Amino acid sequence: MKDAIDSHKYNGYAPSVGYLHSREAVAKFYSHPAAPLEGKDVILASGCSQAIELAISVLCNPGQNILVPCPGFSLYKTLAVSLGIQVKLYNLLPEKSWEIDLQHLESLIDEKTACLIVNNPSNPCGSVYTKEHLQHILSVASRHCIPILADEIYGDMVFPGCGFHSMAPLSTDVPILSCGGLAKRWLVPGWRMGWILIHDRNQAFGPEIREGLVKLSQRILGPCTIVQGALESILNSTPQEFYCNTVSFLKSNSEICYTALSTIPGLTPVKPSGAMYLMVGIEMEHFPEFQSDVDFTERLVTEQSVFCLPATAFEYPNFFRIVVTVPEHMMVEACSRIREFCNLHYRASNLETNYLDQ
Amino acid sequence: MKDAIDSHKYNGYAPSVGYLHSREAVAKFYSHPAAPLEGKDVILASGCSQAIELAISVLCNPGQNILVPCPGFSLYKTLAVSLGIQVKLYNLLPEKSWEIDLQHLESLIDEKTACLIVNNPSNPCGSVYTKEHLQHILSVASRHCIPILADEIYGDMVFPGCGFHSMAPLSTDVPILSCGGLAKRWLVPGWRMGWILIHDRNQAFGPEIREGLVKLSQRILGPCTIVQGALESILNSTPQEFYCNTVSFLKSNSEICYTALSTIPGLTPVKPSGAMYLMVGIEMEHFPEFQSDVDFTERLVTEQSVFCLPATAFEYPNFFRIVVTVPEHMMVEACSRIREFCNLHYRASNLETNYLDQ
Ligand SMILES: Cc1ncc(COP(=O)(O)O)c(C=O)c1O
Ligand SMILES: Cc1ncc(COP(=O)(O)O)c(C=O)c1O
Repeated sequence: MKDAIDSHKYNGYAPSVGYLHSREAVAKFYSHPAAPLEGKDVILASGCSQAIELAISVLCNPGQNILVPCPGFSLYKTLAVSLGIQVKLYNLLPEKSWEIDLQHLESLIDEKTACLIVNNPSNPCGSVYTKEHLQHILSVASRHCIPILADEIYGDMVFPGCGFHSMAPLSTDVPILSCGGLAKRWLVPGWRMGWILIHDRNQAFGPEIREGLVKLSQRILGPCTIVQGALESILNSTPQEFYCNTVSFLKSNSEICYTALSTIPGLTPVKPSGAMYLMVGIEMEHFPEFQSDVDFTERLVTEQSVFCLPATAFEYPNFFRIVVTVPEHMMVEACSRIREFCNLHYRASNLETNYLDQ
Repeated sequence: MKDAIDSHKYNGYAPSVGYLHSREAVAKFYSHPAAPLEGKDVILASGCSQAIELAISVLCNPGQNILVPCPGFSLYKTLAVSLGIQVKLYNLLPEKSWEIDLQHLESLIDEKTACLIVNNPSNPCGSVYTKEHLQHILSVASRHCIPILADEIYGDMVFPGCGFHSMAPLSTDVPILSCGGLAKRWLVPGWRMGWILIHDRNQAFGPEIREGLVKLSQRILGPCTIVQGALESILNSTPQEFYCNTVSFLKSNSEICYTALSTIPGLTPVKPSGAMYLMVGIEMEHFPEFQSDVDFTERLVTEQSVFCLPATAFEYPNFFRIVVTVPEHMMVEACSRIREFCNLHYRASNLETNYLDQ
């Protein structure tokens, strides 16, 4: 970053899709023999959020619909609705480590379906899909000729033992816009650097999608040039150790959390394999004082100062999401406070409670 | 910027409207006794472009219309049209240093008019409005209860001798969103830092506008945090000399340009008072080889390698725009090439030409 500042080369306007050399650095970093990328296949944007906004805008017209994971990152719905695009939520299956319910997914597709959003690894689930599962998703998309918006911002943030597979190399025919950025793996979300990788299998997108993305990028003229100037060295010179440390920290914290919560009566955590999140089911029948996950998490913060997002925010009631990026001792402390909170409010069952009440 | 990087305080997410201390720095910089500002009145955005996007989105609904200067910066129309908002162009008068044709402006207003955009100082005109003219504009807005989007990105970039007046302090009743940023006065357009100053006279906007801007800002989560971290010292520690040097350079260049072009037969430059532009009328009847200003400027670049934007890009045919930010010797060279080009293609008049042809 400082080199980029000192060079005085990065103060003026860049092309709205980014400097070519910065786009080439991203292309090189993500190019794969089965899904090669060049500079022209990369659009830089102001964070992955804007990348997603551009991708949805270019793929869908008002009146069409878009397939969005449930539970899923809320931005998809926010953006789609504001663009006049209908959102259809497809179910993820907690009992299958949040794999997509493919039958449900396929049942939602109609002639107005313009795009399928796949978020892998997932916020809020922390799930990472196997190659086979991704291939099954691709066959659905292929069968119905639906392009995929792959939100892969947590790509490669997977725990040792499970592998991350980007969707594009697995597809021979489905066109894919893969969205990513510096926010997560490089831990600098404030820098607002994101990108779209255009994987245009068999030129299914044609020139319109590229031209559309260029035009849309001209609305706010791309991300900060200083970060663009630093991009090449960020991607090429970050030591492997940095990535490994992050991932092993996340894995260790998520194990502490999962193990602790597994033994708390009334909670059902789902084991994550990547990203920085963990979803926890609340057996609401054992917490008769609370109306909902929103209620539950509000009281948790009031009584124990532990802040968790109710999964209603991800269209998935009766769960809450834990972020495992806090220092280890806080993770431990948070879990023990959650235990105390649950012990206090847990009722063995409604039946039993009613029985005792009489 | 380097201090902001070294502090390690600016890597995480900021609030989507910006850090409070950065917003307060902007508020303090632009606060005026007649139009006081606090941190909460400032929304940071990814460049003035995004500030304008947010402002238009929050002020206008699809199906309404917006009043836009002609000639004017093309982004207004691009954004409005893509949001389903109708654009009504009001005329600027070259013979009155590009003042607004107030009668024409007023004639365009109807019950669906949601906002008036005033760009002062102006791109592409380089014009700077007097206090009186701004007051007349404000009375029109006041009479019809129309809020103003004041694009003041070139604020204070006015030549010695004429003063810049921001609109807000001149108004007692018209609510104003003033858009600005670092791009022009601080000469770092690539850094993508812009802002909206909310001047909510008599709470005419009410809480909805603030809440709407906050919600809209959450789509892409604000500008780069490193630039936000540096904002306070950029605004407070830039030496006065820096601003003065820029302005006197622009003034000197624009005088060189204006003086040179004034003596070229067939061209009518309009003298600017600020910003970094100058509009030049083309007496098309004297250039029968060219169909339009687009034709004229294309040939100018092919034959003389002088690049000017045809004013058709600003919805204003038969003019072209000169940018006066090039080094002085290039400005002089460009003017002499334009002279050569015009001399070559100038025909005394159609009449005379026809006469000679026979
Ligand atoms: C799944 C997912 N996609 C995109 C984003 C947005 O990333 P950025 O900060 O680069 O806009 C987030 C941020 O939390 C996310 O969780
Ligand atoms: C009148 C006007 N408004 C806004 C902008 C956009 O500024 P920014 O680069 O901060 O988005 C420009 C840029 O040329 C401009 O001329």
